[in-house]
Amino acid sequence: MLPAASPQSSTRPFRVRRIDAGSSSSFTDVVAVEEPLEIRLAYSFKSTRRIESAAVTMRTPGEERELAAGFLLSEGVIDKPADILEIRMLGSTGCNEVLVELSPDVDVEDWRLRRSTLLTSACGLCGKRTVDSIPVSSMKAGEGPRLSSEFINRLPALLSGHQADFSKTGGLHAAALVRPDGKLEALFEDIGRHNALDKLIGHRLLAGRFPLSGAIIFMSSRGSFELVQKSLAAGCSVLATIGAPSSLAIEFARDRGQTLIGFVRDRHFNLYSGEWRIDS
Amino acid sequence: MLPAASPQSSTRPFRVRRIDAGSSSSFTDVVAVEEPLEIRLAYSFKSTRRIESAAVTMRTPGEERELAAGFLLSEGVIDKPADILEIRMLGSTGCNEVLVELSPDVDVEDWRLRRSTLLTSACGLCGKRTVDSIPVSSMKAGEGPRLSSEFINRLPALLSGHQADFSKTGGLHAAALVRPDGKLEALFEDIGRHNALDKLIGHRLLAGRFPLSGAIIFMSSRGSFELVQKSLAAGCSVLATIGAPSSLAIEFARDRGQTLIGFVRDRHFNLYSGEWRIDS
Repeated sequence: MLPAASPQSSTRPFRVRRIDAGSSSSFTDVVAVEEPLEIRLAYSFKSTRRIESAAVTMRTPGEERELAAGFLLSEGVIDKPADILEIRMLGSTGCNEVLVELSPDVDVEDWRLRRSTLLTSACGLCGKRTVDSIPVSSMKAGEGPRLSSEFINRLPALLSGHQADFSKTGGLHAAALVRPDGKLEALFEDIGRHNALDKLIGHRLLAGRFPLSGAIIFMSSRGSFELVQKSLAAGCSVLATIGAPSSLAIEFARDRGQTLIGFVRDRHFNLYSGEWRIDS
Repeated sequence: MLPAASPQSSTRPFRVRRIDAGSSSSFTDVVAVEEPLEIRLAYSFKSTRRIESAAVTMRTPGEERELAAGFLLSEGVIDKPADILEIRMLGSTGCNEVLVELSPDVDVEDWRLRRSTLLTSACGLCGKRTVDSIPVSSMKAGEGPRLSSEFINRLPALLSGHQADFSKTGGLHAAALVRPDGKLEALFEDIGRHNALDKLIGHRLLAGRFPLSGAIIFMSSRGSFELVQKSLAAGCSVLATIGAPSSLAIEFARDRGQTLIGFVRDRHFNLYSGEWRIDS
């Protein structure tokens, strides 16, 4: 069963003018909603309690608890469900702020330090950064499932059959979790591909069904470094996308033993790394 | 004349396996390069000189000086060419760090404060953010050009005729500046749509051809809030995109009097705001 739809709408109608072959008409367009969400953390530091902002992301409303949980996991702030004591929206309906109460064990200051090290780590004089300097070196893909090329070829139809809001707006990305037997476990949409993936990861984390080691993640977007990194952090060994991968996504996936698949469409696809998991 | 190609390549070859209708073959795929770039600022604060990191962005190598200048302008750190004294890459070729020497007049600390106000401004208890609370209220679209629907319909062909690397990789976004007479003034590609636009804006800023008030910006991507905000900051009154706009992009463009056009393809398009600039 797919997760229930959000009480907040992810689309919004706008009255617009359409110009087609020189003729003009007015119609109601259904548009993907984009709004900021602030993720705030309540955590312990040297026996005192702190509340601080961790991030603001431009996202599509809905599944804010899942988005916050997935963001914290995929960005390395937490690494297990028990790290989160409570997540709640602040204020009234339509509010764009979520507060995550973290276990006293979670070292937020250490995460801040590691993040700022990433941002300022330098090789020699010039601060050149490469895949080698990304401080997530312990993150390796697990064994993961073995899959047939027929399984991969069926993914686009599986996605389009369930991605309700994209077909209305043309503006939402989807992240889907698919089992090796072809069953769609969960699907989340968002205007940002990273948010769609964070919602998916957070949903599993909050449901206590974590890590995502037995299934694959399929996304409607291009394959960026960020998606490889987030899916690896969630324990997923296979990432497939409809769009093109980036160089850093390929390099990182190869380095960490993840299977990265791109251009999944029209019954063909490209295997960029970890090809031993795919029987052609 | 379009700006010269970057000495660094924006694409990179990878040996990959293609699975097509069950048959497997090996080929060399050309992939869009994604690498981090750190933008560092050297600036004055209370008569002392500081060097600090302003941002790290995942971008496609090339035009780093333009990217840095455009980022600083479109994010509101600077507002004119004279605010930049010098921009230089740090270290060796292939380095991912750029240093911007700012004029003593530029108040970086004030920008940091405004940015952190954006991130923490609250309405009442819950911190709800809307288009009304975005602290760029003085930013209004200028009169701008008047354009025909035929001009808009010609944009996709203009872009595809010049977007060399997208056709190779399927992974790069383009930002183009087009004059009302149909002439392509400049075009920049990047794996991030916001970077492509920053490169375009920075190119004009560094060339002393600023603001971008007489021309229009056409982008291959979806139209997000960020693109509306950046194009307005650059003084451009018309933004057109091949993809769908977001709700916040439409709301912000309407509020600021910018013409926002989406789904420009197959000789039709949708007018989301500022329709008085388009003669249908």
